[in-house]
Amino acid sequence: MKKKIYVVKIGGNVINDSIKLHQFLRAFQALEGFKLLIHGGGAKATQWGDRLSLNAQMIEGRRVTDDQMIDVVTMVYAGLINKKIVAALQAENCDAMGLSGVDANLIFSKKRRFEGIDYGWVGDPLFVNVVRLSTFIDLGLVPILAPITHEGQGNLLNTNADTIANAVASAMVKKYEVHLIYAFEQRGVMKDVQNPDSLIKSINHSYYLELKANGFVSKGMIPKLDNAFQARANGVSKICIIKFDKINRLNQGYDHTSII
Amino acid sequence: MKKKIYVVKIGGNVINDSIKLHQFLRAFQALEGFKLLIHGGGAKATQWGDRLSLNAQMIEGRRVTDDQMIDVVTMVYAGLINKKIVAALQAENCDAMGLSGVDANLIFSKKRRFEGIDYGWVGDPLFVNVVRLSTFIDLGLVPILAPITHEGQGNLLNTNADTIANAVASAMVKKYEVHLIYAFEQRGVMKDVQNPDSLIKSINHSYYLELKANGFVSKGMIPKLDNAFQARANGVSKICIIKFDKINRLNQGYDHTSII
Repeated sequence: MKKKIYVVKIGGNVINDSIKLHQFLRAFQALEGFKLLIHGGGAKATQWGDRLSLNAQMIEGRRVTDDQMIDVVTMVYAGLINKKIVAALQAENCDAMGLSGVDANLIFSKKRRFEGIDYGWVGDPLFVNVVRLSTFIDLGLVPILAPITHEGQGNLLNTNADTIANAVASAMVKKYEVHLIYAFEQRGVMKDVQNPDSLIKSINHSYYLELKANGFVSKGMIPKLDNAFQARANGVSKICIIKFDKINRLNQGYDHTSII
Repeated sequence: MKKKIYVVKIGGNVINDSIKLHQFLRAFQALEGFKLLIHGGGAKATQWGDRLSLNAQMIEGRRVTDDQMIDVVTMVYAGLINKKIVAALQAENCDAMGLSGVDANLIFSKKRRFEGIDYGWVGDPLFVNVVRLSTFIDLGLVPILAPITHEGQGNLLNTNADTIANAVASAMVKKYEVHLIYAFEQRGVMKDVQNPDSLIKSINHSYYLELKANGFVSKGMIPKLDNAFQARANGVSKICIIKFDKINRLNQGYDHTSII
């Protein structure tokens, strides 16, 4: 029987709020068994970019990353956010180890090139080094992954954290029974964000397409759900979208959206 | 017989110059056998501090690290510099893995408290996790250490890279025959920095005290040499101070200063 592992993704808005971040980290720390964390941090990179008078350019929810912005996102994601999370977890006796996709060649990407649009230093994952990741996990370490990858030519690439979560979870299927958790500020996918009773408790691909066609899922949710359904197709056992402070209480029946 | 390991420290001025940094990294990559790297990065942190209109305060060659400055040094050391070095080494087929002292609890420090002087978020190493480091090295990984440590309470501490090099080298003595290399811009310790013929080829502790008493060693060199002699006293086999692009040619008789 394969060992179970939790692959958890935490979003930028929670990271940006230190009280919420610590609530999330307590829940993550309480999650029993093998686990790893992928964090974003978009809002914080934008703040530091503003302080440095850089302009964050966005195309379809993805940051355009020029020479200056790749330095800023590397500093903020792989430096500030990653090490603060690791220090907080170490203080709670969770043996966290912060890494980016560059370290130990964990995540190898392809620089994104689309006709007409130059995304700059942006990468899409091609290969996840499951051997290294599982070695670290077997040593009792908890990998904390920052969304920076590389293409093997010495350049760093800004990489969407939801996509990394999908790529890591999908690659881990070979060795583990993978549970993928997208944690963020909402209780799950809401049909109407203003209405707390509109939580969608489970969603399959055809229902997703229907919701999307009718405009019920918003811009930011689309890449997350695309990644979630791709992970499902790749053999990830369980996938859910849940509020950041409830990730250790899935079995207690707390509300969330299951991807089925 | 113990396995040989090179513990290399590279200074901030070389890091600040991308051509010199790449010359150094090629020499480091060519160094055969087990190795690890500790990097500083003081000048780059000051530059980013300036861009953010922070003032770098120094007392006796050590940065005073307030709440804002610990964020900046964490971003610059553990983020930007560390990941650029790792990406460059990975491009040369060196399986580098960037870590700070927080990650996997590698370097545990004590927050510095001296009467009358508040150094802020500054730490002095108490414990180096040799078990973890040697596990990574045995896996074929090359640890690249950023000079950020922690005190187990969730706070990050700015830590002198020369001191970390001494602490790591000294702790590794239990398991390895340790060769400690301080690499920087000069050929070694110079009696007169203006005179290239004044290289001191070897220096013992009493000669060091004599040079110091007569003002022949400068401010920046004193903590480096203090650390080097402490490592010597702790059983480190060989210690030398050498130019950054010559570290792989020690056996070919290139000039350097040996600490004896």
